[in-house]
Amino acid sequence: MPHIALPPDLPGIRGPMAFRPETAKPLNELVDVLLRGPHTLSPGERELIATYVSSQNECRYCQTIHGAVAAHHLNHDEALVVHVKDDFEHAAISDKLKALLVIAGKTAQSGRSVTAADVSRARALGATDLEVHDTVLIAAVFCMCNRYVDGLATWAPDDPDFYRRRAAIVAENGYAASTLTPSPLPSSIA
Amino acid sequence: MPHIALPPDLPGIRGPMAFRPETAKPLNELVDVLLRGPHTLSPGERELIATYVSSQNECRYCQTIHGAVAAHHLNHDEALVVHVKDDFEHAAISDKLKALLVIAGKTAQSGRSVTAADVSRARALGATDLEVHDTVLIAAVFCMCNRYVDGLATWAPDDPDFYRRRAAIVAENGYAASTLTPSPLPSSIA
Repeated sequence: MPHIALPPDLPGIRGPMAFRPETAKPLNELVDVLLRGPHTLSPGERELIATYVSSQNECRYCQTIHGAVAAHHLNHDEALVVHVKDDFEHAAISDKLKALLVIAGKTAQSGRSVTAADVSRARALGATDLEVHDTVLIAAVFCMCNRYVDGLATWAPDDPDFYRRRAAIVAENGYAASTLTPSPLPSSIA
Repeated sequence: MPHIALPPDLPGIRGPMAFRPETAKPLNELVDVLLRGPHTLSPGERELIATYVSSQNECRYCQTIHGAVAAHHLNHDEALVVHVKDDFEHAAISDKLKALLVIAGKTAQSGRSVTAADVSRARALGATDLEVHDTVLIAAVFCMCNRYVDGLATWAPDDPDFYRRRAAIVAENGYAASTLTPSPLPSSIA
């Protein structure tokens, strides 16, 4: 049960976002720029970074919804998402993305864990300054979202189909627009 | 030296914000709503939460600038800010704020560390749902900012007067407006 009175029909971050629309607006804008704006990393790659960090932080809601959005962008390859979460160095992703995931994972532990050697490795594999910047900020943003979702003890649906359907809405419309888009409740899906 | 090429004259978060104005805009809006918007917690109390979390995360730039902004709002009581960082349970702050700082500190460790008992204690001391929500989100936001600042290895001035002067600008104008406001460099202050 959430620690404060949130709309009972909205899981994860959507409950507190409905409770406090003044903070939801910039939060959604930030995530839309980072995960969906014009970029040299694809939306699927950026969602994988968000998913991996959320997995490292053991946030069930965030890793499941962003994993579903990543899979939606990556030809529905859910096995790839699982592989990235479990052992990304051996997953079927680019070497550059592997180097960026190292930076993301260290950022999640503490910003001070990221070393010049980590960044040099990424750069040698083709990463630009903007890609390094956005990797650090995506990781940092999900350290925020994970704590927001779990610090208020929000609930997360069990049904994987809930996340798949929600992912399709988010992938099509973006995060800011989807905040106002209803999605089927888990109980109506079963 | 920062991991990527940032404007050399801007310390802490201001370097990456100048590098990536598209993300700086919602970040500053979020912090302005949380730390400066209309609220039952004073700006000084909210800055103390941000300072305490940044201190727990050992982010020198964030704990020093937000500590200076907190002191600016709290009759320039810099000793109080140090006391809150070191041992807030014995500092001259309200019992409600102490209970909220417990929640903030646990959120910084992991959202899952916050317990129903922590929230009950805060509520028994007068905390509202909005105050609990904003405490968790302020703590989460500074877990993001701290990682953003340190994950890119930004630099932080040594001179305490730099932070005092910058704090006066921020306290008067807000975070979004101050991003575009120049402030004296440490070398010009000595």
